[in-house]
Amino acid sequence: MLINVITPEIQELINSHDWKSLKEVLPGLEPVDTSDLIRSVSSTEDRVIIFRLLPRDLAADVFSEMDWDLQEDILSGMNNTQIRQILTELEPDDRTRFFEECPSEVTRKLIEFLPVDERKKTLELLGYPEYSVGRLMTPNYVAIKKNWTIKRSMEHIRKIGKNVENFDIVYVIDNQWKLLDAIELRSLILSDDDALVESIMDNTYVSLSAFEDQEKAVHYFEHYGLPILPVVDSEGVLLGSITFDDILEIAKEEATEDFHKTASVSPLETPYMQTKVLDFFKKRVGWLVALIFVNIISGFAMAHFEELIQAVTALVFFIPLIIDSGGNAGSQSSAMIIRAFATGEVHLKQWWEVVLKDLFVSMMLGLTMGLAVSLVGVYRGGFLMGISVALSMAAVVVTGSLLGTILPFILRVFKLDPATASSPLITSMADILGVIFFFSISQALIGL
Amino acid sequence: MLINVITPEIQELINSHDWKSLKEVLPGLEPVDTSDLIRSVSSTEDRVIIFRLLPRDLAADVFSEMDWDLQEDILSGMNNTQIRQILTELEPDDRTRFFEECPSEVTRKLIEFLPVDERKKTLELLGYPEYSVGRLMTPNYVAIKKNWTIKRSMEHIRKIGKNVENFDIVYVIDNQWKLLDAIELRSLILSDDDALVESIMDNTYVSLSAFEDQEKAVHYFEHYGLPILPVVDSEGVLLGSITFDDILEIAKEEATEDFHKTASVSPLETPYMQTKVLDFFKKRVGWLVALIFVNIISGFAMAHFEELIQAVTALVFFIPLIIDSGGNAGSQSSAMIIRAFATGEVHLKQWWEVVLKDLFVSMMLGLTMGLAVSLVGVYRGGFLMGISVALSMAAVVVTGSLLGTILPFILRVFKLDPATASSPLITSMADILGVIFFFSISQALIGL
Repeated sequence: MLINVITPEIQELINSHDWKSLKEVLPGLEPVDTSDLIRSVSSTEDRVIIFRLLPRDLAADVFSEMDWDLQEDILSGMNNTQIRQILTELEPDDRTRFFEECPSEVTRKLIEFLPVDERKKTLELLGYPEYSVGRLMTPNYVAIKKNWTIKRSMEHIRKIGKNVENFDIVYVIDNQWKLLDAIELRSLILSDDDALVESIMDNTYVSLSAFEDQEKAVHYFEHYGLPILPVVDSEGVLLGSITFDDILEIAKEEATEDFHKTASVSPLETPYMQTKVLDFFKKRVGWLVALIFVNIISGFAMAHFEELIQAVTALVFFIPLIIDSGGNAGSQSSAMIIRAFATGEVHLKQWWEVVLKDLFVSMMLGLTMGLAVSLVGVYRGGFLMGISVALSMAAVVVTGSLLGTILPFILRVFKLDPATASSPLITSMADILGVIFFFSISQALIGL
Repeated sequence: MLINVITPEIQELINSHDWKSLKEVLPGLEPVDTSDLIRSVSSTEDRVIIFRLLPRDLAADVFSEMDWDLQEDILSGMNNTQIRQILTELEPDDRTRFFEECPSEVTRKLIEFLPVDERKKTLELLGYPEYSVGRLMTPNYVAIKKNWTIKRSMEHIRKIGKNVENFDIVYVIDNQWKLLDAIELRSLILSDDDALVESIMDNTYVSLSAFEDQEKAVHYFEHYGLPILPVVDSEGVLLGSITFDDILEIAKEEATEDFHKTASVSPLETPYMQTKVLDFFKKRVGWLVALIFVNIISGFAMAHFEELIQAVTALVFFIPLIIDSGGNAGSQSSAMIIRAFATGEVHLKQWWEVVLKDLFVSMMLGLTMGLAVSLVGVYRGGFLMGISVALSMAAVVVTGSLLGTILPFILRVFKLDPATASSPLITSMADILGVIFFFSISQALIGL
């Protein structure tokens, strides 16, 4: 089975509108591949026809794999009864994801379509703050008691398991519904029928609070490598669980977002190949124009030294070298800190340790870079030029690097995204420093 | 349970060498937290003592959570019998990860410690190429036949499950051991005892080949959202399986590596806070010095126009603006392409479509940027300066952006890492273009 599942044969079935044969093929595909297949068809009418070829239970799985724009497109081609059916069949967490994207008046209308108990669940999940663990949660799970036997537990699982998306992990709760332990279904199966649940409990489990940030959930999954984590309220009462597939998706999206941000691109909301020219333009133009203003400050700094440049034109040779090196060192620092924040390797309170370390590193780098370019300086403009270039290089590498380290911390203090300290921003800011250092030092050493 | 599990109480037990109390606490921690705890202790002696407080089965779990330097440190404090015990208890995939890092003479020696069958397994896994799916695989799994009843299958699972790390997914194979289907343990449990395995098969499954790249495994897990994937050989014969926890780890490491590379930092091998000053220096200095050479080319370009600069000093004001904007546009493009390659959103053969799209986007950006700075140009140096600045800006934004888009493709064609097209590299290369465009256009329009 390939990720690119749209084989010429399947394509041919679609082109020739051979729905009967397609209907036989579709159940053999993974839901996410069927979703990709439907997206590849351009007319809404055909998309709806293909979707309606799916058996009912598979349809909900396929629907939940779709991006919101495709979901909307499919629903737009269906009648109320069909819409009601799909929404009711969706797993609660997939339903939350769908409603999150809907305009609020649409949500209000569609939520009325749900049976009372599903409606209650949905409203409760949507009640959690955006980007919180609660929004990812599914409230369906299997819970057992510690004084039950394995046999009784298995009977319970067989009874209610059909309505639970995933019960590879079963929860042990007390009478107040407080979480006591998380047990692998595997362990239950390997235990004796007459043994008590208690006998296989180890009383260690990892849980998340429903109000915590989704980023924390990603860290927990990565740290503990567990496929499912229970979600509890502030009292430790079990509310639901989160599965790793949602987490993989979020981890990937967050990394992409940070990637784009550190290059001064507002995060794309669609995969690269599906992003339109105008959207690319919109996501890029803001920062490019904003950085003009930072560069104009460098321009003024340059203009300030016009007379010096006229007197010692040899200086212009070194401008790209000096100003770029500061930006390069700064880009390195900021990228490392931004990523370390994202993976949870560095915390705000460690700022002092981090800055001190970067100071040492950047001084070593500055020294190396200064020495490397001093010879170029001597060669192009004599001894004093060599010293001037070396000193400026050292100064701009150290300050550029520190700028790249400190700015993400400052952004974080103000609850802004550290990834805003993008490579282009740091480079443009370091340019100002580079210009000022180089010309001031040269003026002092070489003079007019 | 917190990720930062080293509470003052536990710290106190370690400080006071109260090993007896610590021994009671340790089994209540998750293995990865115990591994962190052991790392936090500085003396090898104490590390070994704490490690030896662990019950035997837990010890292997904790050991497999450790980074290699810590594993090495622990083994250095143990005798041969103890080493033999740990290595034998390790899961095959964790053992592969350990031996991968060992110097080959150490591997040769330690592998002799293993019982014959475990030794065979280990050698086989180490036989797969580095960074291949085979290296992540565990050859222990549960396989059943399609003509078995559920009852017989469950009996089989109970018999061999104890030696299998994870059997949340059970495989159906034919008599030639070829993979026919992957079935959730959950489905088996919810089925009637007398039903045949065949009756719950859907004959759709996703599998990986042992020789494929680990990156592909990451894409498969992200795309399909499955917790475990089977690994087969070229004939479709089942070899083993991969679990998502290894994949989460690899996905995170790969994203970090790309993050560092796009900022011209050689990937750090240790978490940020554990990386030493000298290592930071080593990872950063190479590219910084290498980029000096690219910047010197810009310097020569600048020097070529010395006379023009002397005649029209007002030009210097625009140098940072023009050269930075090309670099910024290029950084945006390269970051987006690098990430799209990494997530599998863009493939090499789509280069034409991507370049064409970027051409349109960058022309729109160039136009906007040109217009934005034309007024600044007119204001600082008159009408011709305005035109010169606007044209140079448009040209450098378009070429910078295309450079950022095309370079990752070229690297990929030559089987090099596209992430080498880092922000600093693109910026430095775009500088050369910026200098040449700006001064050539100015010379033509404004003259000497």
